[in-house]
This record gives sequence, C-alpha cells and structure tokens, in this order.
Amino acid sequence: MLSQSQIKHITALKVKKFREERSQFIAEGHKVVAELLSGKFTIAGIYASSEWILANLPLAREKNIPLFETLPREMERISALSTPSPVLAVINIPPPLIPPRGRGLTLALDDIRDPGNLGTIIRIADWFGIDTVLCSENCVDSYNPKVVQATMGSIARVNVTRCNLAETLRTLPEGNEFPVYGTFLEGESVFSQTLSDHGIVVIGNESRGISPGLVPFITRKLFIPSFGSSAQGKAESLNASIATAIICAEFRRKLKT
Amino acid sequence: MLSQSQIKHITALKVKKFREERSQFIAEGHKVVAELLSGKFTIAGIYASSEWILANLPLAREKNIPLFETLPREMERISALSTPSPVLAVINIPPPLIPPRGRGLTLALDDIRDPGNLGTIIRIADWFGIDTVLCSENCVDSYNPKVVQATMGSIARVNVTRCNLAETLRTLPEGNEFPVYGTFLEGESVFSQTLSDHGIVVIGNESRGISPGLVPFITRKLFIPSFGSSAQGKAESLNASIATAIICAEFRRKLKT
Repeated sequence: MLSQSQIKHITALKVKKFREERSQFIAEGHKVVAELLSGKFTIAGIYASSEWILANLPLAREKNIPLFETLPREMERISALSTPSPVLAVINIPPPLIPPRGRGLTLALDDIRDPGNLGTIIRIADWFGIDTVLCSENCVDSYNPKVVQATMGSIARVNVTRCNLAETLRTLPEGNEFPVYGTFLEGESVFSQTLSDHGIVVIGNESRGISPGLVPFITRKLFIPSFGSSAQGKAESLNASIATAIICAEFRRKLKT
Repeated sequence: MLSQSQIKHITALKVKKFREERSQFIAEGHKVVAELLSGKFTIAGIYASSEWILANLPLAREKNIPLFETLPREMERISALSTPSPVLAVINIPPPLIPPRGRGLTLALDDIRDPGNLGTIIRIADWFGIDTVLCSENCVDSYNPKVVQATMGSIARVNVTRCNLAETLRTLPEGNEFPVYGTFLEGESVFSQTLSDHGIVVIGNESRGISPGLVPFITRKLFIPSFGSSAQGKAESLNASIATAIICAEFRRKLKT
C-alpha cells in the first residue's frame, strides 16, 4: 500500500513545475523502465506489481533502488498512461550538461512543442549514435511523461540539455570547423551535398520552422527534396521528427559510404 | 444554428462503425480543409464560423458545397479536436481502388495501429510522390479523425485503400519485375543495395514488425543500419513512420542520383 503522500508526490511529477522543484520525473512500462535500469540515471524508487518486483529484485537490490509494491488501483492513480503498466519509476533529473564543442553530430531543437515529436527525435538520435540533443527554452519539457514514453527508453542514453540556443550557437568557434546545419525551403538538397561528420543540426519548430534569431548562425542550409507530382500539388512539409530522421540517416550514410 | 440531428450525425462520424455505415468522415482545421477543397474528395458539407464562410464563399459555391454557419459552442460538440478550429468538413469516402500493379512505388502497411503513425506515413507518401498506400485489414481506419489530422491534408492526394495484403501480394506477377521490399533485422543495408524505381514496400506493425503470413512474399529484405555506440547499448528499433521516411527517402535519392 502506498501512502497518500507518496501518491501525491508521484502525481505531482506529471506537472513540469513540480518536476523542476523536485528534480525528478516518472517513466513507465516494462521496456522503458528496463532501459532506465541499465542507463545513466539514478532511480529514486520503483512502484510495481509484486510480479514485476519478484522478477527484478536482484537487479534492483544491486542498484540499491527502493521498491514499493503497488496495487493496480494505486497504479491507476499515479500513472500518466491511459492504460497503466505494472511498473513506474521515479528518476532523479541529472544536472544539465555543458553543450559540447567536440566531435560528432549534435541536434539542436528550436521550440519543438509536441511531446511525441521530441520523444521520437531522442529515439532517432539514439539510433544514429548522436549523443547530445540541445533543447531551446521553449521546447516541451524533455521529462514530460509523454516525451519519456515516446523515447522508448532512449532518454536513458542520450544527453538531453535545455539551453538558450542563440547563446550556445553564438559561442561556437567560427567557420567550417564547426558547421551549423538547418533545413530551409531554399536550401541545397541534403542528398547531393557534402556533409561533415561533426557539427550541429538545427531542427525548427513544427509550424514556424527555424526562428529568425537563429538563422544568422546557420552556416549550411539543407533541404529535403520532395518527389510529388506537381499536377495535383503535394505535401507542403514534413513532420519535424520525420525531417530529423531523413537528415540524420543521410549524415550517417555519407559517413559510412 | 445546427439541428440536433446534424450534431448527432457529425458526432457519430468519430466512430468507425458509423463512418462505414454512412461512407463519410470528418476533417478539421484551416489547412486540412483547404487541402481537401482542392483535392479529389466530394465534400458533403462544411460547418464553419461566419468568418470562414465569408472568406471561402466563392470556392464553396463553385463546388456546390453546402455551408452551415456554426457557433463556437456547437463546434465544441461536433469537433474531434481538443481545441476545435473554426471549420469542419464532412466528406464522402471514395470507393476503394483496385490495388495497383503498375509502375512506381506503393506502400503496404501491415497492421499499423497508431493513428499518428498512419497519418504521418500518408504525409510521407505524398511528399515522396507515392500515390498509393495499401492498408491491411487490421490497420487503424484511415478515416479516423486523428489519422486525417496527422496527414495535414495529404489524404486528399494519396489513394489509401484497405485490402487483404496477403491476397494482394499473392496475385502479384512473380520475380523481380515487381519486387516486394520489407525491413528485417537480418536484411541488407538500404543504403548500400540497389533499389528499383517500382515495387511494393511493406511496413510492419509498430511492435511486432512484418507478420509471418506476409514474410514469404517479401523478395528483398532491407535494414536501416544504426550507428549507436555499442558500449552503452542503443535504441532497439525505430518508430514505424520514421523507418518509412528513411526508406522512402533512400528510394527517391537513388532514383534521382
């Protein structure tokens, strides 16, 4: 049985303000919690069915994670899912990373508002070996439960840091040593141009694209060519996470071939 | 003012059973309705604010579309959106197409269950000039309001047809003339192999992949290579719509270069 104060504490973590105050977030479901158990985060507690606890006791003991047996009706109260799973973890939010200036690719997300998009972009970064995702201050909170679920556990491996993107881009070394890419309708085809194995790729907001304040920092304008027939028109744009996937895949394809 | 029977009729269209009975679906929002106005569908009626009607009267008259001025509180009752827009269209579902055997690429979706994924895949097809998307009988209904919204209007241009995929694949001409592609963990890298400019690409279910009953029909197994560092593990998979986007982009890249 959970106490009322436990239920209140966990429920509060569905709200950004309380996540920030308490530096904690929640993650749910077998797969996501399993990934977090083997990842970089410190887990403050796991709330789970007796079956889950029985199956995961050795690992949780090894990591000194407090376990709380939770009844289905209690899980319904603390869960952020419409269909609660048998396990919910409360996780400590790690301190923000200093944005990287080193090798490799970094994604910089400019006001990505949809939790599904942000979670999916973090999963794409994980798949393509991109270890850092910078989020502008107006992005949806990366510890929002819907974001965490959409990462399918990738949030355990990718460093997601909120920062002022304009400030971060302003302090980068100048010139081609650290290219800053962004997608624009008037850009060059991502398929036909040379791409480097390092730099920052700026991904614009779902409806407005890259904000005017960031445009001066973009040194390489990219475009994903469409192939629709012009006779009947075609899609005007791609979803932000879809565009991210195609661009990341193309960077990685060029790196390997 | 709408009548109670109008409100009841439109509200019923949120449910698949009634969409099928009445052969109608709803679409909402400025952009989606604008795309549908210029697309292939027959619009049975538009329910909109007086401002929308004033701005769109000539086009609606030209197309003989009945217009119904709708108050915000009425829109809240008929809308499927959490934040209703000023315009909702009721559209006649077109008769199903005979699956194509011709040139070009076709997507075949094997039990895509998430409305956001299906809508996003239709938008990707539109972007990359793929004019037909076949949906297995267990896919989410393509006229589900969430699917329609996620297409951002692309449903007006892409032919989306429900069929028995195994039957459809069984009756294809044999051999390389009509290759059937599918993604598998043991497939060949989509980046390094030759791809044709025509054929069918089968996209598997979000969690189970391509169903065993369809596997015998796949003549070309593809794989999207990941680039995660093995030290800390990596994402196990990509979201179905993300994988679709990367594969379609690669087919089109090879076609153009």
